Amino acid sequence: MNSLDQIRTLCASPLPGDDTAAAAIAARQAQLTKPPGSLGRLEELAAWLGRWQGREMPRLDRVAVLVFAGNHGVVARGVSPFPASVTAQMVANFAAGGAAINQLAAVAGASLQVVPLELEHPTADLCTAPAMTEAEFLAAFTAGHDAVAPEMDLLCLGEMGIGNTTAGAALAAALFGADGAASLGAFWAGRGTGVDDAGLRRKREAIDTAIAFHGAALGDPLEAARRLGGRETAAILGATLAARRHRVPVLLDGFVCTAAAAPLARLARGGLDHAIIAHASAEHGHKALIGRLGMQPLLDLGMRLGEGSGATLAVPILRAALACHAGMATFAQAGVSTAGDA
Amino acid sequence: MNSLDQIRTLCASPLPGDDTAAAAIAARQAQLTKPPGSLGRLEELAAWLGRWQGREMPRLDRVAVLVFAGNHGVVARGVSPFPASVTAQMVANFAAGGAAINQLAAVAGASLQVVPLELEHPTADLCTAPAMTEAEFLAAFTAGHDAVAPEMDLLCLGEMGIGNTTAGAALAAALFGADGAASLGAFWAGRGTGVDDAGLRRKREAIDTAIAFHGAALGDPLEAARRLGGRETAAILGATLAARRHRVPVLLDGFVCTAAAAPLARLARGGLDHAIIAHASAEHGHKALIGRLGMQPLLDLGMRLGEGSGATLAVPILRAALACHAGMATFAQAGVSTAGDA
Repeated sequence: MNSLDQIRTLCASPLPGDDTAAAAIAARQAQLTKPPGSLGRLEELAAWLGRWQGREMPRLDRVAVLVFAGNHGVVARGVSPFPASVTAQMVANFAAGGAAINQLAAVAGASLQVVPLELEHPTADLCTAPAMTEAEFLAAFTAGHDAVAPEMDLLCLGEMGIGNTTAGAALAAALFGADGAASLGAFWAGRGTGVDDAGLRRKREAIDTAIAFHGAALGDPLEAARRLGGRETAAILGATLAARRHRVPVLLDGFVCTAAAAPLARLARGGLDHAIIAHASAEHGHKALIGRLGMQPLLDLGMRLGEGSGATLAVPILRAALACHAGMATFAQAGVSTAGDA
Repeated sequence: MNSLDQIRTLCASPLPGDDTAAAAIAARQAQLTKPPGSLGRLEELAAWLGRWQGREMPRLDRVAVLVFAGNHGVVARGVSPFPASVTAQMVANFAAGGAAINQLAAVAGASLQVVPLELEHPTADLCTAPAMTEAEFLAAFTAGHDAVAPEMDLLCLGEMGIGNTTAGAALAAALFGADGAASLGAFWAGRGTGVDDAGLRRKREAIDTAIAFHGAALGDPLEAARRLGGRETAAILGATLAARRHRVPVLLDGFVCTAAAAPLARLARGGLDHAIIAHASAEHGHKALIGRLGMQPLLDLGMRLGEGSGATLAVPILRAALACHAGMATFAQAGVSTAGDA
């Protein structure tokens, strides 16, 4: 991508879903050997996959997990109990297969690609400067965009970055405000990897300071992503847009990942309709963010790890939805009486 | 089993869990490369599997789905939109591989066994007689008990039986009352496979009639199971008890399955601790039942099919929990700094 304006134009006219495929799936669901609607969300998921893949019989042959990693200048303000060096250490752990996401990707039957983004160059401190220059933002956004292969059937997104719940909370605050709460920081900041009370106060202050510093510029969702986010959140934004263009449905992960993709919902009505929030994170602020986006998470298991862990955990739910849709017999095929024959 | 008294004795002293295994699992979890507790329920699930398998490193090599089917005399009262013949038709659909549970068992990597119980002999109408004689109840209970192989690592339970949400609601009403609600039937009865308003009224009336007819005899949870339940609910009760005796953790399914196993919770404190309710069903009454049992479902996806569908859908969540527990590196192994190093 060459400019924010180019991205803005792409975001403003998202590819529509395939209503024909979704309708065909719903029609088949009505004939399968079960009371109508009794598979609940699984029925909706089958139609959602078909709508955004553009296929009357969706596929989940190529499921990809993409985890983007970045470092944050705001860490110097003491907003995390972990040192910034942990970002690179965890990237090495991903490469060695020792992290949660490695195990979860294997269970999900998904490929895993980890994309570290200039870890040796943290973003600027969002309290006193834009986190990224326009060139830095475009590079990170493009790295995410170009990491999405058009032939993917499903994309799970995740992130790693010490300090990025501060960035994510600032971005959420800029995009959605706080309904009259006294402090945006108090409304959106959570404990992240487990910051103590003093650290949480510093985190809240950092968010409030950043929002005040950047002021009216934050009215533009892309500027908010550039000024407050990290390279990994910019990459998630780019990947989520690319998925829409390539007809790849997306599973978003927790708080940071959702905040990262949220500008798409502000830049066009339905801009996130090809994405599902896989789980409600235990990180403070995620449920509020989900509510503002009008979305319904699939899982709620008290997780707050990031790394794409919640997104990847939900993949078998989609496989189950698809298996039922594709494999069940119809009432006619099975010779089962339908309702009303009683 | 030879008598209700024999069952009562077994239920009264359930095998304790393995605290040592659970503690070892919790200790390992604390060292894995993630903020403490950040895998939420997945961490608890790993410890739960170990506690009830009696293994410090739990296994999920042999996951079994058992679906019991029975027919109900109360169907003659017009409590279901489907004819009773659908029970046998669906058993044939299970055998042919065309039902939802067939697809879900395949996704879960689980074996599936369907056990039809005297489908040609419906239970008696619970409004006017005990649904089963003592001999019939013991035979069904024993069929369930003996269907549990001791070498199973996890058991998913399910049921099929036109009319059995009426039986399940009556059983829930007998076991838990309704906190002063005017009508037990109104409190516990739902639409099952999709009964209309008139059918729902008949269903509520049947439940109230049954509770009044059997009176004080329902104070005994096993008598409630015999008088109000079906052969499939008696079998689920037997299977759930057998699983405790054989150190096999259990995933319960929806409303009928939960009601079927609930007498164990009334017969001994902790009598259902080896079981997890896999999902909150959309069937009216399930969330109230879950609340009375003090349990926390894993999933809430608006499903209301039965067949063990929700239980089996949750198996990959347990596989993910175990994969993380077994496969993740510790902070020391991975050379990752811990919290407090910031």
